[in-house]
Amino acid sequence: MTSPRPSQAELAAFLQAEFPQTRCTLEALDDDGSVVVAHPVGLAELRPGGTVSGPVMMTLADVALYVAILAQIGIVPLAVTTNLSINFLRKPRADRRLVARCRLLKLGRTLAVGEVYVFSEGEDEPVAHATGTYAIPRA
Amino acid sequence: MTSPRPSQAELAAFLQAEFPQTRCTLEALDDDGSVVVAHPVGLAELRPGGTVSGPVMMTLADVALYVAILAQIGIVPLAVTTNLSINFLRKPRADRRLVARCRLLKLGRTLAVGEVYVFSEGEDEPVAHATGTYAIPRA
Amino acid sequence: MTSPRPSQAELAAFLQAEFPQTRCTLEALDDDGSVVVAHPVGLAELRPGGTVSGPVMMTLADVALYVAILAQIGIVPLAVTTNLSINFLRKPRADRRLVARCRLLKLGRTLAVGEVYVFSEGEDEPVAHATGTYAIPRA
Amino acid sequence: MTSPRPSQAELAAFLQAEFPQTRCTLEALDDDGSVVVAHPVGLAELRPGGTVSGPVMMTLADVALYVAILAQIGIVPLAVTTNLSINFLRKPRADRRLVARCRLLKLGRTLAVGEVYVFSEGEDEPVAHATGTYAIPRA
Repeated sequence: MTSPRPSQAELAAFLQAEFPQTRCTLEALDDDGSVVVAHPVGLAELRPGGTVSGPVMMTLADVALYVAILAQIGIVPLAVTTNLSINFLRKPRADRRLVARCRLLKLGRTLAVGEVYVFSEGEDEPVAHATGTYAIPRA
Repeated sequence: MTSPRPSQAELAAFLQAEFPQTRCTLEALDDDGSVVVAHPVGLAELRPGGTVSGPVMMTLADVALYVAILAQIGIVPLAVTTNLSINFLRKPRADRRLVARCRLLKLGRTLAVGEVYVFSEGEDEPVAHATGTYAIPRA
Repeated sequence: MTSPRPSQAELAAFLQAEFPQTRCTLEALDDDGSVVVAHPVGLAELRPGGTVSGPVMMTLADVALYVAILAQIGIVPLAVTTNLSINFLRKPRADRRLVARCRLLKLGRTLAVGEVYVFSEGEDEPVAHATGTYAIPRA
Repeated sequence: MTSPRPSQAELAAFLQAEFPQTRCTLEALDDDGSVVVAHPVGLAELRPGGTVSGPVMMTLADVALYVAILAQIGIVPLAVTTNLSINFLRKPRADRRLVARCRLLKLGRTLAVGEVYVFSEGEDEPVAHATGTYAIPRA
Protein backbone atom coordinates (compact mmCIF):
# COMPACT_ATOMS: atom_id res chain seq x y z
CA MET A 1 0.00 0.00 0.00
CA THR A 2 1.34 3.43 -0.87
CA SER A 3 0.47 6.76 0.66
CA PRO A 4 -3.20 7.18 1.52
CA ARG A 5 -3.74 9.97 -0.96
CA PRO A 6 -2.01 9.36 -4.28
CA SER A 7 -1.58 12.21 -6.72
CA GLN A 8 -3.43 12.31 -10.01
CA ALA A 9 -0.24 11.30 -11.82
CA GLU A 10 0.27 8.33 -9.50
CA LEU A 11 -3.29 7.17 -10.05
CA ALA A 12 -3.02 7.57 -13.82
CA ALA A 13 0.20 5.55 -13.83
CA PHE A 14 -1.40 2.82 -11.72
CA LEU A 15 -4.43 2.69 -14.00
CA GLN A 16 -2.18 2.05 -16.99
CA ALA A 17 -0.20 -0.61 -15.13
CA GLU A 18 -3.20 -2.42 -13.68
CA PHE A 19 -5.39 -2.25 -16.80
CA PRO A 20 -2.87 -2.19 -19.64
CA GLN A 21 -5.64 -2.63 -22.20
CA THR A 22 -7.81 0.15 -20.84
CA ARG A 23 -8.71 3.13 -22.95
CA CYS A 24 -9.95 5.02 -19.88
CA THR A 25 -8.03 8.11 -18.87
CA LEU A 26 -8.07 9.93 -15.56
CA GLU A 27 -9.06 13.50 -16.25
CA ALA A 28 -9.46 15.07 -12.82
CA LEU A 29 -9.14 14.37 -9.13
CA ASP A 30 -11.09 16.95 -7.19
CA ASP A 31 -10.52 18.18 -3.68
CA ASP A 32 -13.88 16.83 -2.56
CA GLY A 33 -12.77 13.34 -3.55
CA SER A 34 -14.70 13.04 -6.78
CA VAL A 35 -12.88 11.88 -9.90
CA VAL A 36 -13.44 12.32 -13.61
CA VAL A 37 -12.55 9.52 -16.02
CA ALA A 38 -13.02 9.59 -19.79
CA HIS A 39 -13.27 7.03 -22.57
CA PRO A 40 -12.89 7.70 -26.28
CA VAL A 41 -15.76 6.86 -28.60
CA GLY A 42 -14.81 5.54 -32.00
CA LEU A 43 -15.47 2.58 -34.22
CA ALA A 44 -14.53 0.12 -31.48
CA GLU A 45 -17.19 1.55 -29.15
CA LEU A 46 -20.02 1.90 -31.65
CA ARG A 47 -22.62 -0.56 -32.81
CA PRO A 48 -24.38 -0.31 -36.15
CA GLY A 49 -26.70 2.68 -36.01
CA GLY A 50 -24.27 4.79 -34.02
CA THR A 51 -25.12 3.49 -30.56
CA VAL A 52 -22.34 3.38 -27.99
CA SER A 53 -22.12 -0.14 -26.64
CA GLY A 54 -23.49 -0.60 -23.13
CA PRO A 55 -20.41 -2.47 -21.91
CA VAL A 56 -18.28 0.57 -22.71
CA MET A 57 -20.35 2.58 -20.24
CA MET A 58 -20.18 -0.21 -17.66
CA THR A 59 -16.41 -0.40 -18.06
CA LEU A 60 -16.07 3.33 -17.63
CA ALA A 61 -18.29 3.33 -14.54
CA ASP A 62 -16.34 0.47 -12.99
CA VAL A 63 -12.98 2.15 -13.59
CA ALA A 64 -14.27 5.48 -12.26
CA LEU A 65 -15.41 3.79 -9.05
CA TYR A 66 -12.12 2.01 -8.66
CA VAL A 67 -10.10 5.18 -9.15
CA ALA A 68 -12.32 7.17 -6.76
CA ILE A 69 -11.77 4.58 -4.04
CA LEU A 70 -8.03 4.35 -4.60
CA ALA A 71 -7.84 8.14 -4.50
CA GLN A 72 -9.11 7.88 -0.91
CA ILE A 73 -7.57 4.72 0.48
CA GLY A 74 -4.33 4.67 -1.46
CA ILE A 75 -3.26 2.32 -4.18
CA VAL A 76 -4.50 -1.09 -3.04
CA PRO A 77 -4.61 -3.32 -6.07
CA LEU A 78 -6.64 -5.99 -4.34
CA ALA A 79 -9.81 -3.99 -3.97
CA VAL A 80 -12.50 -5.80 -5.97
CA THR A 81 -15.93 -4.85 -7.21
CA THR A 82 -18.64 -6.80 -5.46
CA ASN A 83 -21.69 -5.20 -7.05
CA LEU A 84 -22.43 -2.78 -9.86
CA SER A 85 -25.85 -1.59 -10.89
CA ILE A 86 -26.29 0.68 -13.90
CA ASN A 87 -29.24 2.45 -15.45
CA PHE A 88 -28.97 3.48 -19.07
CA LEU A 89 -30.81 6.75 -19.47
CA ARG A 90 -30.22 8.24 -22.91
CA LYS A 91 -28.45 7.40 -26.15
CA PRO A 92 -24.90 8.75 -26.00
CA ARG A 93 -23.59 10.83 -28.87
CA ALA A 94 -21.46 8.93 -31.35
CA ASP A 95 -19.13 11.89 -31.87
CA ARG A 96 -18.15 12.71 -28.28
CA ARG A 97 -16.05 11.06 -25.63
CA LEU A 98 -17.81 9.59 -22.62
CA VAL A 99 -16.98 11.31 -19.35
CA ALA A 100 -17.76 9.78 -15.96
CA ARG A 101 -17.89 11.66 -12.68
CA CYS A 102 -17.73 9.50 -9.57
CA ARG A 103 -18.05 10.32 -5.93
CA LEU A 104 -18.10 8.05 -2.92
CA LEU A 105 -21.25 7.67 -0.86
CA LYS A 106 -19.51 5.68 1.84
CA LEU A 107 -15.98 4.73 2.65
CA GLY A 108 -16.00 2.10 5.36
CA ARG A 109 -13.29 -0.22 6.57
CA THR A 110 -14.41 -3.15 4.47
CA LEU A 111 -16.80 -1.69 1.90
CA ALA A 112 -16.84 1.43 -0.23
CA VAL A 113 -19.91 2.56 -2.16
CA GLY A 114 -19.90 5.15 -4.89
CA GLU A 115 -22.09 6.60 -7.57
CA VAL A 116 -21.18 7.53 -11.12
CA TYR A 117 -22.81 9.80 -13.65
CA VAL A 118 -21.79 9.19 -17.27
CA PHE A 119 -22.15 11.97 -19.84
CA SER A 120 -21.40 12.51 -23.49
CA GLU A 121 -18.72 15.16 -23.13
CA GLY A 122 -20.16 18.64 -23.04
CA GLU A 123 -23.77 17.53 -22.50
CA ASP A 124 -25.84 18.30 -19.43
CA GLU A 125 -28.02 15.24 -19.16
CA PRO A 126 -26.42 11.98 -18.07
CA VAL A 127 -26.49 8.99 -20.43
CA ALA A 128 -26.08 6.52 -17.58
CA HIS A 129 -25.99 6.36 -13.79
CA ALA A 130 -24.31 3.60 -11.82
CA THR A 131 -23.76 2.65 -8.22
CA GLY A 132 -21.13 0.19 -7.17
CA THR A 133 -19.62 -1.47 -4.15
CA TYR A 134 -15.99 -2.41 -3.69
CA ALA A 135 -14.62 -4.73 -1.03
CA ILE A 136 -11.51 -3.33 0.57
CA PRO A 137 -8.94 -5.89 1.66
CA ARG A 138 -8.02 -5.90 5.32
CA ALA A 139 -4.70 -4.30 6.06
CA MET B 1 -38.14 -7.78 -37.63
CA THR B 2 -37.51 -11.32 -38.76
CA SER B 3 -39.25 -14.48 -37.69
CA PRO B 4 -40.12 -14.59 -33.99
CA ARG B 5 -37.85 -17.54 -33.30
CA PRO B 6 -34.49 -17.27 -35.04
CA SER B 7 -32.25 -20.30 -35.27
CA GLN B 8 -28.97 -20.50 -33.39
CA ALA B 9 -27.10 -19.83 -36.64
CA GLU B 10 -29.20 -16.74 -37.36
CA LEU B 11 -28.57 -15.40 -33.87
CA ALA B 12 -24.85 -16.08 -34.11
CA ALA B 13 -24.70 -14.26 -37.45
CA PHE B 14 -26.61 -11.30 -36.05
CA LEU B 15 -24.33 -11.13 -33.03
CA GLN B 16 -21.31 -10.83 -35.29
CA ALA B 17 -22.97 -8.20 -37.45
CA GLU B 18 -24.30 -6.11 -34.60
CA PHE B 19 -21.21 -6.34 -32.38
CA PRO B 20 -18.37 -6.75 -34.87
CA GLN B 21 -15.78 -6.31 -32.11
CA THR B 22 -17.34 -8.83 -29.78
CA ARG B 23 -15.43 -11.87 -28.68
CA CYS B 24 -18.62 -13.48 -27.32
CA THR B 25 -19.83 -16.61 -29.04
CA LEU B 26 -23.27 -18.21 -28.90
CA GLU B 27 -22.83 -21.75 -27.67
CA ALA B 28 -26.34 -23.04 -27.18
CA LEU B 29 -29.97 -22.12 -27.55
CA ASP B 30 -32.08 -24.42 -25.45
CA ASP B 31 -35.67 -25.44 -25.97
CA ASP B 32 -36.69 -23.81 -22.71
CA GLY B 33 -35.48 -20.46 -24.04
CA SER B 34 -32.23 -20.27 -22.12
CA VAL B 35 -29.05 -19.44 -23.98
CA VAL B 36 -25.37 -20.08 -23.37
CA VAL B 37 -22.78 -17.52 -24.45
CA ALA B 38 -19.01 -17.82 -23.94
CA HIS B 39 -16.07 -15.43 -23.86
CA PRO B 40 -12.42 -16.38 -24.16
CA VAL B 41 -10.04 -15.49 -21.34
CA GLY B 42 -6.56 -14.48 -22.36
CA LEU B 43 -4.14 -11.63 -21.89
CA ALA B 44 -6.71 -9.07 -23.01
CA GLU B 45 -9.13 -10.15 -20.27
CA LEU B 46 -6.67 -10.48 -17.41
CA ARG B 47 -5.36 -7.93 -14.99
CA PRO B 48 -2.05 -8.28 -13.18
CA GLY B 49 -2.40 -11.09 -10.66
CA GLY B 50 -4.51 -13.22 -12.96
CA THR B 51 -7.89 -11.65 -12.23
CA VAL B 52 -10.41 -11.57 -15.02
CA SER B 53 -11.53 -7.98 -15.48
CA GLY B 54 -15.00 -7.18 -14.15
CA PRO B 55 -16.07 -5.46 -17.37
CA VAL B 56 -15.49 -8.69 -19.28
CA MET B 57 -18.08 -10.39 -17.10
CA MET B 58 -20.47 -7.45 -17.47
CA THR B 59 -20.06 -7.54 -21.24
CA LEU B 60 -20.74 -11.25 -21.34
CA ALA B 61 -23.83 -10.87 -19.14
CA ASP B 62 -25.18 -8.06 -21.28
CA VAL B 63 -24.69 -9.99 -24.51
CA ALA B 64 -26.25 -13.13 -23.02
CA LEU B 65 -29.33 -11.17 -22.00
CA TYR B 66 -29.59 -9.58 -25.41
CA VAL B 67 -29.33 -12.91 -27.20
CA ALA B 68 -31.85 -14.58 -24.87
CA ILE B 69 -34.37 -11.84 -25.62
CA LEU B 70 -33.81 -11.91 -29.36
CA ALA B 71 -34.17 -15.69 -29.27
CA GLN B 72 -37.73 -15.11 -28.05
CA ILE B 73 -38.89 -11.96 -29.79
CA GLY B 74 -36.96 -12.27 -33.03
CA ILE B 75 -34.09 -10.17 -34.25
CA VAL B 76 -35.01 -6.63 -33.25
CA PRO B 77 -31.83 -4.60 -33.29
CA LEU B 78 -33.38 -1.68 -31.44
CA ALA B 79 -33.88 -3.45 -28.14
CA VAL B 80 -31.77 -1.59 -25.56
CA THR B 81 -30.59 -2.41 -22.08
CA THR B 82 -32.20 -0.17 -19.50
CA ASN B 83 -30.73 -1.68 -16.35
CA LEU B 84 -28.09 -4.21 -15.43
CA SER B 85 -27.14 -5.24 -11.94
CA ILE B 86 -24.30 -7.66 -11.34
CA ASN B 87 -22.86 -9.34 -8.25
CA PHE B 88 -19.32 -10.63 -8.44
CA LEU B 89 -19.15 -13.79 -6.38
CA ARG B 90 -15.80 -15.54 -6.85
CA LYS B 91 -12.54 -15.04 -8.66
CA PRO B 92 -12.76 -16.61 -12.11
CA ARG B 93 -10.05 -18.94 -13.28
CA ALA B 94 -7.42 -17.38 -15.52
CA ASP B 95 -7.12 -20.52 -17.65
CA ARG B 96 -10.74 -21.15 -18.57
CA ARG B 97 -13.29 -19.47 -20.80
CA LEU B 98 -16.19 -17.69 -19.17
CA VAL B 99 -19.58 -19.23 -19.88
CA ALA B 100 -22.86 -17.44 -19.23
CA ARG B 101 -26.24 -19.08 -18.99
CA CYS B 102 -29.20 -16.73 -19.30
CA ARG B 103 -32.90 -17.30 -18.94
CA LEU B 104 -35.74 -14.81 -19.06
CA LEU B 105 -37.77 -14.07 -15.95
CA LYS B 106 -40.33 -12.03 -17.83
CA LEU B 107 -41.07 -11.26 -21.43
CA GLY B 108 -43.60 -8.46 -21.59
CA ARG B 109 -44.64 -6.27 -24.47
CA THR B 110 -42.35 -3.41 -23.53
CA LEU B 111 -39.89 -4.89 -21.03
CA ALA B 112 -37.98 -8.13 -20.77
CA VAL B 113 -36.13 -9.17 -17.63
CA GLY B 114 -33.57 -11.93 -17.44
CA GLU B 115 -31.00 -13.41 -15.14
CA VAL B 116 -27.53 -14.63 -15.99
CA TYR B 117 -25.16 -16.97 -14.20
CA VAL B 118 -21.51 -16.66 -15.22
CA PHE B 119 -19.14 -19.58 -14.67
CA SER B 120 -15.54 -20.42 -15.38
CA GLU B 121 -16.05 -23.21 -17.88
CA GLY B 122 -16.41 -26.58 -16.20
CA GLU B 123 -16.85 -25.21 -12.68
CA ASP B 124 -19.96 -25.63 -10.57
CA GLU B 125 -20.01 -22.40 -8.60
CA PRO B 126 -20.90 -19.19 -10.42
CA VAL B 127 -18.34 -16.37 -10.54
CA ALA B 128 -21.01 -13.74 -11.12
CA HIS B 129 -24.77 -13.34 -11.25
CA ALA B 130 -26.57 -10.57 -13.11
CA THR B 131 -30.09 -9.41 -13.75
CA GLY B 132 -30.98 -7.06 -16.53
CA THR B 133 -33.88 -5.31 -18.18
CA TYR B 134 -34.26 -4.59 -21.86
CA ALA B 135 -36.76 -2.19 -23.39
CA ILE B 136 -38.46 -3.69 -26.42
CA PRO B 137 -39.36 -1.24 -29.15
CA ARG B 138 -43.01 -1.03 -30.10
CA ALA B 139 -43.85 -2.82 -33.31
CA MET C 1 -55.02 11.50 -15.58
CA THR C 2 -55.27 14.88 -13.91
CA SER C 3 -53.31 18.02 -14.62
CA PRO C 4 -49.67 17.38 -15.51
CA ARG C 5 -48.33 19.20 -12.50
CA PRO C 6 -50.28 18.53 -9.33
CA SER C 7 -49.83 20.76 -6.31
CA GLN C 8 -48.19 19.52 -3.14
CA ALA C 9 -51.59 19.31 -1.48
CA GLU C 10 -53.00 17.25 -4.34
CA LEU C 11 -50.07 14.87 -4.19
CA ALA C 12 -50.33 14.53 -0.42
CA ALA C 13 -54.04 13.75 -0.71
CA PHE C 14 -53.38 11.17 -3.41
CA LEU C 15 -50.69 9.53 -1.32
CA GLN C 16 -53.14 9.07 1.53
CA ALA C 17 -55.83 7.70 -0.76
CA GLU C 18 -53.55 5.34 -2.67
CA PHE C 19 -51.57 4.09 0.31
CA PRO C 20 -54.03 4.38 3.19
CA GLN C 21 -51.67 2.48 5.52
CA THR C 22 -48.64 4.59 4.68
CA ARG C 23 -46.84 6.55 7.35
CA CYS C 24 -44.91 8.51 4.71
CA THR C 25 -45.63 12.21 4.46
CA LEU C 26 -44.85 14.58 1.61
CA GLU C 27 -42.71 17.38 3.01
CA ALA C 28 -41.67 19.41 0.00
CA LEU C 29 -42.07 19.65 -3.76
CA ASP C 30 -39.28 21.76 -5.19
CA ASP C 31 -39.28 23.82 -8.34
CA ASP C 32 -36.54 21.68 -9.84
CA GLY C 33 -38.80 18.65 -9.57
CA SER C 34 -37.22 17.03 -6.56
CA VAL C 35 -39.43 15.93 -3.70
CA VAL C 36 -38.89 15.34 0.00
CA VAL C 37 -40.79 12.58 1.80
CA ALA C 38 -40.45 11.67 5.48
CA HIS C 39 -41.21 8.65 7.63
CA PRO C 40 -41.47 8.61 11.41
CA VAL C 41 -39.15 6.35 13.39
CA GLY C 42 -40.63 4.74 16.46
CA LEU C 43 -41.13 1.34 17.96
CA ALA C 44 -42.72 -0.01 14.80
CA GLU C 45 -39.64 0.88 12.74
CA LEU C 46 -36.97 -0.30 15.15
CA ARG C 47 -35.41 -3.67 15.65
CA PRO C 48 -33.78 -4.78 18.88
CA GLY C 49 -30.57 -2.79 19.27
CA GLY C 50 -32.05 0.39 17.89
CA THR C 51 -31.59 -0.35 14.20
CA VAL C 52 -34.14 1.05 11.81
CA SER C 53 -35.50 -1.82 9.73
CA GLY C 54 -34.24 -1.94 6.14
CA PRO C 55 -37.73 -2.35 4.69
CA VAL C 56 -38.71 0.99 6.21
CA MET C 57 -35.99 2.67 4.15
CA MET C 58 -37.01 0.71 1.04
CA THR C 59 -40.62 1.74 1.53
CA LEU C 60 -39.64 5.37 1.93
CA ALA C 61 -37.45 5.26 -1.19
CA ASP C 62 -40.21 3.65 -3.23
CA VAL C 63 -42.80 6.19 -2.16
CA ALA C 64 -40.40 9.09 -2.80
CA LEU C 65 -39.78 7.84 -6.33
CA TYR C 66 -43.47 7.42 -6.95
CA VAL C 67 -44.29 10.90 -5.74
CA ALA C 68 -41.44 12.47 -7.74
CA ILE C 69 -42.75 10.87 -10.91
CA LEU C 70 -46.36 11.81 -10.27
CA ALA C 71 -45.22 15.36 -9.57
CA GLN C 72 -43.99 15.48 -13.15
CA ILE C 73 -46.46 13.40 -15.12
CA GLY C 74 -49.60 14.05 -13.12
CA ILE C 75 -51.51 11.70 -10.92
CA VAL C 76 -51.47 8.40 -12.83
CA PRO C 77 -52.26 5.68 -10.35
CA LEU C 78 -51.20 2.91 -12.70
CA ALA C 79 -47.51 3.73 -12.74
CA VAL C 80 -45.70 0.72 -11.29
CA THR C 81 -42.20 0.15 -10.00
CA THR C 82 -40.25 -2.20 -12.22
CA ASN C 83 -36.90 -2.10 -10.44
CA LEU C 84 -35.48 -0.76 -7.21
CA SER C 85 -31.90 -1.05 -6.08
CA ILE C 86 -30.84 0.24 -2.68
CA ASN C 87 -27.50 0.52 -0.91
CA PHE C 88 -27.56 0.78 2.87
CA LEU C 89 -24.72 3.06 3.88
CA ARG C 90 -24.89 3.88 7.58
CA LYS C 91 -26.96 3.04 10.62
CA PRO C 92 -29.83 5.51 10.90
CA ARG C 93 -30.47 7.25 14.18
CA ALA C 94 -33.20 5.71 16.30
CA ASP C 95 -34.40 9.11 17.52
CA ARG C 96 -34.90 10.94 14.25
CA ARG C 97 -37.33 10.75 11.36
CA LEU C 98 -36.07 9.44 8.07
CA VAL C 99 -36.14 11.99 5.27
CA ALA C 100 -35.80 11.04 1.60
CA ARG C 101 -34.92 13.44 -1.19
CA CYS C 102 -35.69 12.16 -4.69
CA ARG C 103 -34.95 13.59 -8.09
CA LEU C 104 -35.57 12.12 -11.50
CA LEU C 105 -32.66 11.13 -13.72
CA LYS C 106 -34.87 10.47 -16.71
CA LEU C 107 -38.49 11.00 -17.58
CA GLY C 108 -39.26 9.16 -20.80
CA ARG C 109 -42.57 8.25 -22.35
CA THR C 110 -42.59 4.72 -20.99
CA LEU C 111 -39.94 4.69 -18.25
CA ALA C 112 -38.91 7.08 -15.50
CA VAL C 113 -35.73 6.64 -13.49
CA GLY C 114 -34.95 8.43 -10.27
CA GLU C 115 -32.49 8.43 -7.43
CA VAL C 116 -33.18 8.85 -3.73
CA TYR C 117 -30.96 9.83 -0.84
CA VAL C 118 -32.26 8.85 2.60
CA PHE C 119 -31.08 10.72 5.69
CA SER C 120 -31.73 10.70 9.37
CA GLU C 121 -33.34 14.11 9.71
CA GLY C 122 -30.78 16.84 10.30
CA GLU C 123 -27.77 14.70 9.42
CA ASP C 124 -25.42 15.36 6.48
CA GLU C 125 -24.40 11.86 5.49
CA PRO C 126 -27.00 9.65 3.79
CA VAL C 127 -28.04 6.40 5.47
CA ALA C 128 -29.14 4.87 2.17
CA HIS C 129 -29.16 5.57 -1.55
CA ALA C 130 -31.59 4.04 -4.01
CA THR C 131 -32.30 4.13 -7.70
CA GLY C 132 -35.57 2.97 -9.16
CA THR C 133 -37.45 2.63 -12.41
CA TYR C 134 -41.15 3.10 -12.92
CA ALA C 135 -43.14 2.01 -15.96
CA ILE C 136 -45.52 4.72 -17.11
CA PRO C 137 -48.77 3.46 -18.61
CA ARG C 138 -49.49 4.58 -22.15
CA ALA C 139 -52.04 7.34 -22.40
CA MET D 1 -23.40 -16.62 18.24
CA THR D 2 -25.30 -19.83 18.65
CA SER D 3 -24.80 -23.11 16.86
CA PRO D 4 -23.85 -22.75 13.20
CA ARG D 5 -26.96 -24.51 11.95
CA PRO D 6 -30.08 -23.51 13.82
CA SER D 7 -33.24 -25.55 13.46
CA GLN D 8 -36.31 -24.21 11.73
CA ALA D 9 -37.95 -23.65 15.10
CA GLU D 10 -34.95 -21.70 16.39
CA LEU D 11 -34.94 -19.52 13.31
CA ALA D 12 -38.68 -18.92 13.53
CA ALA D 13 -38.33 -17.91 17.17
CA PHE D 14 -35.46 -15.57 16.36
CA LEU D 15 -37.43 -13.97 13.54
CA GLN D 16 -40.25 -13.17 15.94
CA ALA D 17 -37.87 -11.79 18.54
CA GLU D 18 -35.79 -9.72 16.13
CA PHE D 19 -38.69 -8.38 14.05
CA PRO D 20 -41.58 -8.34 16.51
CA GLN D 21 -43.76 -6.45 14.01
CA THR D 22 -43.10 -8.79 11.14
CA ARG D 23 -45.89 -10.70 9.48
CA CYS D 24 -43.39 -12.96 7.70
CA THR D 25 -43.39 -16.61 8.67
CA LEU D 26 -40.72 -19.21 8.06
CA GLU D 27 -42.30 -22.05 6.11
CA ALA D 28 -39.42 -24.32 5.23
CA LEU D 29 -35.71 -24.81 5.65
CA ASP D 30 -34.41 -27.19 3.03
CA ASP D 31 -31.43 -29.45 3.17
CA ASP D 32 -29.77 -27.62 0.30
CA GLY D 33 -29.83 -24.43 2.34
CA SER D 34 -32.73 -22.72 0.65
CA VAL D 35 -35.52 -21.28 2.78
CA VAL D 36 -39.16 -20.47 2.18
CA VAL D 37 -40.76 -17.47 3.87
CA ALA D 38 -44.38 -16.35 3.46
CA HIS D 39 -46.31 -13.13 4.00
CA PRO D 40 -50.08 -12.83 4.23
CA VAL D 41 -51.90 -10.60 1.76
CA GLY D 42 -54.86 -8.70 3.10
CA LEU D 43 -56.14 -5.17 3.36
CA ALA D 44 -52.88 -3.93 4.89
CA GLU D 45 -50.88 -5.16 1.89
CA LEU D 46 -53.19 -4.01 -0.88
CA ARG D 47 -53.47 -0.72 -2.66
CA PRO D 48 -56.62 0.47 -4.39
CA GLY D 49 -57.15 -1.68 -7.46
CA GLY D 50 -56.00 -4.85 -5.75
CA THR D 51 -52.26 -4.39 -6.24
CA VAL D 52 -49.96 -5.76 -3.59
CA SER D 53 -47.71 -2.97 -2.41
CA GLY D 54 -44.12 -3.16 -3.67
CA PRO D 55 -42.65 -2.62 -0.20
CA VAL D 56 -44.38 -5.79 1.01
CA MET D 57 -42.44 -7.77 -1.58
CA MET D 58 -39.21 -5.97 -0.69
CA THR D 59 -39.77 -6.73 2.98
CA LEU D 60 -40.40 -10.36 2.25
CA ALA D 61 -37.28 -10.61 0.06
CA ASP D 62 -35.14 -8.96 2.71
CA VAL D 63 -36.38 -11.25 5.46
CA ALA D 64 -35.94 -14.34 3.28
CA LEU D 65 -32.32 -13.38 2.58
CA TYR D 66 -31.68 -12.75 6.24
CA VAL D 67 -33.12 -16.08 7.29
CA ALA D 68 -31.24 -17.98 4.57
CA ILE D 69 -27.97 -16.50 5.78
CA LEU D 70 -28.67 -17.16 9.44
CA ALA D 71 -29.61 -20.71 8.54
CA GLN D 72 -26.04 -21.15 7.34
CA ILE D 73 -23.94 -19.02 9.66
CA GLY D 74 -25.97 -19.35 12.82
CA ILE D 75 -28.00 -16.71 14.56
CA VAL D 76 -25.88 -13.57 14.31
CA PRO D 77 -28.16 -10.64 14.90
CA LEU D 78 -25.63 -8.12 13.65
CA ALA D 79 -25.63 -9.19 10.03
CA VAL D 80 -26.89 -6.22 8.02
CA THR D 81 -28.16 -5.80 4.48
CA THR D 82 -25.78 -3.74 2.39
CA ASN D 83 -27.55 -3.95 -0.95
CA LEU D 84 -30.86 -5.17 -2.28
CA SER D 85 -31.99 -5.05 -5.88
CA ILE D 86 -35.46 -6.16 -6.88
CA ASN D 87 -37.25 -6.55 -10.20
CA PHE D 88 -41.03 -6.57 -10.13
CA LEU D 89 -42.20 -8.95 -12.82
CA ARG D 90 -45.94 -9.52 -12.61
CA LYS D 91 -48.92 -8.33 -10.62
CA PRO D 92 -49.38 -10.59 -7.59
CA ARG D 93 -52.76 -12.03 -6.85
CA ALA D 94 -54.77 -10.19 -4.24
CA ASP D 95 -56.22 -13.40 -2.81
CA ARG D 96 -53.06 -15.40 -2.17
CA ARG D 97 -50.19 -15.24 0.25
CA LEU D 98 -46.80 -14.24 -1.07
CA VAL D 99 -44.18 -16.96 -0.82
CA ALA D 100 -40.46 -16.29 -1.20
CA ARG D 101 -37.84 -18.91 -1.91
CA CYS D 102 -34.26 -17.85 -1.22
CA ARG D 103 -30.98 -19.54 -1.84
CA LEU D 104 -27.46 -18.26 -1.31
CA LEU D 105 -25.18 -17.62 -4.28
CA LYS D 106 -22.15 -17.02 -2.08
CA LEU D 107 -21.32 -17.37 1.55
CA GLY D 108 -18.00 -15.69 2.22
CA ARG D 109 -16.37 -14.67 5.45
CA THR D 110 -17.51 -11.06 5.23
CA LEU D 111 -20.23 -11.03 2.58
CA ALA D 112 -23.13 -13.29 1.70
CA VAL D 113 -25.11 -12.93 -1.52
CA GLY D 114 -28.44 -14.56 -2.19
CA GLU D 115 -31.28 -14.53 -4.63
CA VAL D 116 -35.00 -14.64 -3.95
CA TYR D 117 -37.94 -15.58 -6.10
CA VAL D 118 -41.31 -14.28 -4.90
CA PHE D 119 -44.51 -16.02 -5.96
CA SER D 120 -48.20 -15.71 -5.33
CA GLU D 121 -48.76 -18.97 -3.50
CA GLY D 122 -49.52 -21.81 -5.86
CA GLU D 123 -48.51 -19.95 -9.01
CA ASP D 124 -45.63 -20.96 -11.30
CA GLU D 125 -44.40 -17.61 -12.54
CA PRO D 126 -42.56 -15.36 -10.10
CA VAL D 127 -43.99 -11.93 -9.28
CA ALA D 128 -40.61 -10.55 -8.26
CA HIS D 129 -36.94 -11.51 -8.19
CA ALA D 130 -34.39 -9.98 -5.85
CA THR D 131 -30.71 -10.27 -5.12
CA GLY D 132 -29.18 -9.00 -1.94
CA THR D 133 -25.91 -8.75 -0.07
CA TYR D 134 -25.43 -9.01 3.66
CA ALA D 135 -22.32 -8.01 5.57
CA ILE D 136 -21.37 -10.61 8.15
CA PRO D 137 -19.78 -9.26 11.31
CA ARG D 138 -16.32 -10.53 12.11
CA ALA D 139 -16.25 -13.12 14.81
